[in-house]
Amino acid sequence: MAVSTINSNKINSDLVKERAKCTFNTVELTHLLDGGAEKTNERKSREKFFLEDPELRLKVPLEYLSHKEKYEESIRIACNIFKKVNQLQSEGKGGMDNFREILGGQLGSALLKDGNPLTLHYVMFIPTVMGQGNIQQQAEWIQKAWNCDIIGTYAQTELGHGTFIRGLETTATYDPKTEEFILDSPTLTSYKWWPGGLGHSANFAIVVAQLYTQGKCHGIHPFIVQLRDEKSHKPLPGIKVGEIGCKMGMNCTNNGYLGFENVRIPRTNMLMKNNQVLPDGTYVKSPSSKLTYGTMIFVRVVLVQDAATYLKKAVIIATRYSAIRHQSQINPNEAEVQILDFVTQQYKLFPYISMCFAFQYAANWLWDVYNNVTGELESGHLDNLPELHAASCVFKAVSSADAAQGVETLRLACGGHGYMTSSNLPQTYGLVTAMCTYEGENTVLLLQTARFLIKTWQNKSNISKLPTVRYLETSLHKNIPFEKSVKWIISTLQQTTAGKINLANEHINQRVKNGQSYEDAWNGTSIELTAAAELHGRSIIVETFYNTVNNLKKQTSQQLGAVLQHLLELYAVYTILRSTGDVLRFTNVLGRDVDVLQLWLEELLAAIRPNAVGIVDSFDIRDEVLSSALGAYDGNVYERLFEEAQKSPLNSDPVNKSFHMYLKPFLQSSL
Amino acid sequence: MAVSTINSNKINSDLVKERAKCTFNTVELTHLLDGGAEKTNERKSREKFFLEDPELRLKVPLEYLSHKEKYEESIRIACNIFKKVNQLQSEGKGGMDNFREILGGQLGSALLKDGNPLTLHYVMFIPTVMGQGNIQQQAEWIQKAWNCDIIGTYAQTELGHGTFIRGLETTATYDPKTEEFILDSPTLTSYKWWPGGLGHSANFAIVVAQLYTQGKCHGIHPFIVQLRDEKSHKPLPGIKVGEIGCKMGMNCTNNGYLGFENVRIPRTNMLMKNNQVLPDGTYVKSPSSKLTYGTMIFVRVVLVQDAATYLKKAVIIATRYSAIRHQSQINPNEAEVQILDFVTQQYKLFPYISMCFAFQYAANWLWDVYNNVTGELESGHLDNLPELHAASCVFKAVSSADAAQGVETLRLACGGHGYMTSSNLPQTYGLVTAMCTYEGENTVLLLQTARFLIKTWQNKSNISKLPTVRYLETSLHKNIPFEKSVKWIISTLQQTTAGKINLANEHINQRVKNGQSYEDAWNGTSIELTAAAELHGRSIIVETFYNTVNNLKKQTSQQLGAVLQHLLELYAVYTILRSTGDVLRFTNVLGRDVDVLQLWLEELLAAIRPNAVGIVDSFDIRDEVLSSALGAYDGNVYERLFEEAQKSPLNSDPVNKSFHMYLKPFLQSSL
Repeated sequence: MAVSTINSNKINSDLVKERAKCTFNTVELTHLLDGGAEKTNERKSREKFFLEDPELRLKVPLEYLSHKEKYEESIRIACNIFKKVNQLQSEGKGGMDNFREILGGQLGSALLKDGNPLTLHYVMFIPTVMGQGNIQQQAEWIQKAWNCDIIGTYAQTELGHGTFIRGLETTATYDPKTEEFILDSPTLTSYKWWPGGLGHSANFAIVVAQLYTQGKCHGIHPFIVQLRDEKSHKPLPGIKVGEIGCKMGMNCTNNGYLGFENVRIPRTNMLMKNNQVLPDGTYVKSPSSKLTYGTMIFVRVVLVQDAATYLKKAVIIATRYSAIRHQSQINPNEAEVQILDFVTQQYKLFPYISMCFAFQYAANWLWDVYNNVTGELESGHLDNLPELHAASCVFKAVSSADAAQGVETLRLACGGHGYMTSSNLPQTYGLVTAMCTYEGENTVLLLQTARFLIKTWQNKSNISKLPTVRYLETSLHKNIPFEKSVKWIISTLQQTTAGKINLANEHINQRVKNGQSYEDAWNGTSIELTAAAELHGRSIIVETFYNTVNNLKKQTSQQLGAVLQHLLELYAVYTILRSTGDVLRFTNVLGRDVDVLQLWLEELLAAIRPNAVGIVDSFDIRDEVLSSALGAYDGNVYERLFEEAQKSPLNSDPVNKSFHMYLKPFLQSSL
Repeated sequence: MAVSTINSNKINSDLVKERAKCTFNTVELTHLLDGGAEKTNERKSREKFFLEDPELRLKVPLEYLSHKEKYEESIRIACNIFKKVNQLQSEGKGGMDNFREILGGQLGSALLKDGNPLTLHYVMFIPTVMGQGNIQQQAEWIQKAWNCDIIGTYAQTELGHGTFIRGLETTATYDPKTEEFILDSPTLTSYKWWPGGLGHSANFAIVVAQLYTQGKCHGIHPFIVQLRDEKSHKPLPGIKVGEIGCKMGMNCTNNGYLGFENVRIPRTNMLMKNNQVLPDGTYVKSPSSKLTYGTMIFVRVVLVQDAATYLKKAVIIATRYSAIRHQSQINPNEAEVQILDFVTQQYKLFPYISMCFAFQYAANWLWDVYNNVTGELESGHLDNLPELHAASCVFKAVSSADAAQGVETLRLACGGHGYMTSSNLPQTYGLVTAMCTYEGENTVLLLQTARFLIKTWQNKSNISKLPTVRYLETSLHKNIPFEKSVKWIISTLQQTTAGKINLANEHINQRVKNGQSYEDAWNGTSIELTAAAELHGRSIIVETFYNTVNNLKKQTSQQLGAVLQHLLELYAVYTILRSTGDVLRFTNVLGRDVDVLQLWLEELLAAIRPNAVGIVDSFDIRDEVLSSALGAYDGNVYERLFEEAQKSPLNSDPVNKSFHMYLKPFLQSSL
């Protein structure tokens, strides 16, 4: 037969049927998710502006290029993206929110699937100068950076230190004679390692270093350092810079290393909004050092959103493919069925559909809390910061871990084809799993949340003012009769969490009684502590989802309201069933109640089945963003897989030169 | 500071200390794992023969090459490997066992980290001709293949069909006039897709196709088909062949696609050991079609071994790195600690150390059962085949899924550095996760085991002869008083499994009562069925581990016996704690018993801590095989990370050409 070429007007007939049987208006859901029809239009026009520009398209799929070629091609595209960003700015359509989306978010990852080497300029360099520079520094540097006269990055992590930033080794020693700081890398482990764009792209960096002045170390501070000559781009004397090599993903982000051999910078290059070093070397400490927490928490809000975005992409791909793929029989005398009809397949897909909503609403909620608390901070009111910090830590940890597991489950649900790069699932996994270790390693973050929980448990005096942990006051001894409702699930999850925290606290006390220091006892109990924190995080996420849906249902059609209710219930039942062991240990729930929950789960899978394709369609993610042979809107899966294979440069010659060089001589020698 | 170069004589001081405090003789454990000192020596000399040959070394790390260059470089190395294999053969040291190890096993994956394009020639092509060809066919083809006059592959999977092989679409229609089969690909989905080496390497293939003769379809059969001209390597007329493109891993295996446009092959190219087509087109069916099960089960034994091997590599890397990496404090006034001292880190590592042993012993046990049952098959005795099939399905599913999760957990336990290609953890994950979908998709396999379990549950008449399921007869109603022992854990896991199978069976019956067909009821209950099968598999693995250690302890030193006992106990406790929910539902275990188990787990982590590095050292895997900057024996982690980065071709120029082409013009235009 002749291999057909793709005709996007021809929609796969299974998808046509799925879309016809959908019980709600998918456009209504799209608008709801975007925050209104106007927002949808804005998004669509931004996507059009970027995605339909031929200058932003790759010449060959990235995966076929060498590592070096990938970098060169992505610098070309990154410059073209920046030009368009500048154009938007000049039209008054700029702003930081847009930058993030264009450089790192859903749109950004469509333009450069494996990362953008210039992203940190807008996402870290400029915001750090804005947040930590004084007025003069802002005037000087933000202008240059905004105009792209310079390209900056942010160099914090070192070969030897990541999440534990107090341990960083790079030094900045003040020399009052010349009014300069001397930057130095005293060890190999003090080399900066990881910053995006540092390898060969940026010519400036914010460098985080231990500040020494008048013979004393004052801890880590940020400095602006020029790395390369602005004209020749050659590294300046004393600057050792290069790229760190290949990674599991993000091979176009040009992550770099950086070492200093006594590099001198002017005193005024230390960012001094908070702490200062005076010309004579006197160190002046700011009273409000907690203010720098803000950026860190902001980044975590963004990461929870990113987790939802990655998961959405994977869930669209896997759901459409499962509607198209026919394989095996349920009844031996009938035809092969859509794999979406296998309950085990639904179980791999639908909980993650509901999780997309759960994480998006969790991110929205965290964003609101963040804005409230930073407002309070400005007026010197710090009481709610620990709770916000605890919530942001656990949300980041839970959303990144669950989204990563989700993307991988969805990839595997596509069988062998999910292993193909042309499915875009392997790359999506490479990006989402990175979130588990960057911006705070997940286990460390869970233990930070656990510390807040144990502290609250030990001293409940202030608890009524802390909405996310208020339940700890009473839930341990509540009598919660079984009920097939989300409200019941929330109360039960809370009681279980309280039970886990209580037990962990007891175990710490026992270990201390047995002669351990509190810190060793904490370490000895840390498996239980992380598990308690995780469950706490999930129970807030279920509650947030519940509150959100109850609000939204007031404004949606009845049909859409029913869909949201199904998704909420599925996420809630799925979450409690993941923790059956703890629930049975710490509440009065019985084995037969678990049976009811399992049946409820199966009912919900069946209820969502007819709307599955409709729901993922509503995410309204363009084919260029999905970038997947398995997930395209038209469903021409096999034609696309075949077409993508044809793009392999190996397929341009029927006989590869290695046949003549190696294989033929070998075959003949054996004759 | 000057960046130091690696001195492998300088062993990292933390590793020196760890090795000094080890309580047992690591060489004793190495010999035990290899099956005796002689086997260890054989392995070591084989490794030396291959790994120290400069002709088998890559010129540049694979990850920096383009997709096409990767292929060309791996064909060069694959030919050199085959030459050495031929040399071994001529010295009488050949044999199929060795081939697998050299081409695909631990050694093979060191020689070609991302797959060998010629592997299927020895691993699938030759064995299939041997297993399914008649005497004449063996005489004709095995000689040619063994001499490497031809290079073969095995083409079964199609774009549209994987695990459900009955659905394959490629046709082989017999034409009695010319005594030929006509091979045809009637649809795009019937194109062969995935076979290794098919793209541009092999010139022959075993093709699995639906056999039509005298107007009737007789199901799938294997045919030998020539694909390319032996001299020019050009595809023969009617053969559409190429490679399928990039994948998550195995980018050097040259996986290909293959379509036929009425390609004629002689009748005698159908492999006819079992079924035959006579010259006039008469189809003659073999009475013993179950014999072909053998190869499939054999492959699964190998996969369980592979799962253990991948896990060993990852666990060595992560354990050594965790002993070397210092980060954060336990007590605020003390120095930063080895991350191996964090209990959460031990919890990420040590259960997977114990799992390496569990899977290796499970593979050994399966291998023995396989040999017994195939022996019985030859004498026409088929009774034990279903049980062996059920065990091989669940072992493959559980070992691949758990090993994949393990490798990924271990990768994440190395923080950001685990994301670096130079850690070799991302590639190891890419290889191990592929096992979840190839050679039978895991969910499908679990359901096959579940079918055997439910059948046995419904009819226990023969159960006393079935050692792996005998427990189902009595364990449901046993009274098992709590006891801190592995024996108790095994009984409790069995009781839990019996409870799950019983409940699933009830749910199927209820659904049938409610009017569903048995098949729909089965599908509706399939989430519970897969979970029951999984637990059944894990309980056999714990039991096998228990029996093996009890035997081994008779021959080992007391010190090594104690270490094996710790590992056994850890695997058992870890396994039962994973299923706490089910255990609480289906047995009399109480919450306070779970407390005891949790504490036991923590005690075992502490007991294994001093021997952790010693145990992974005993796996005795050479640095070339680990291929990891984080895992090398000398522990010079940071020096190696830095050295690997220097190999990036991007680092050979201080200024990349893209600066002049794109970045500089952009920066200037914005001035």
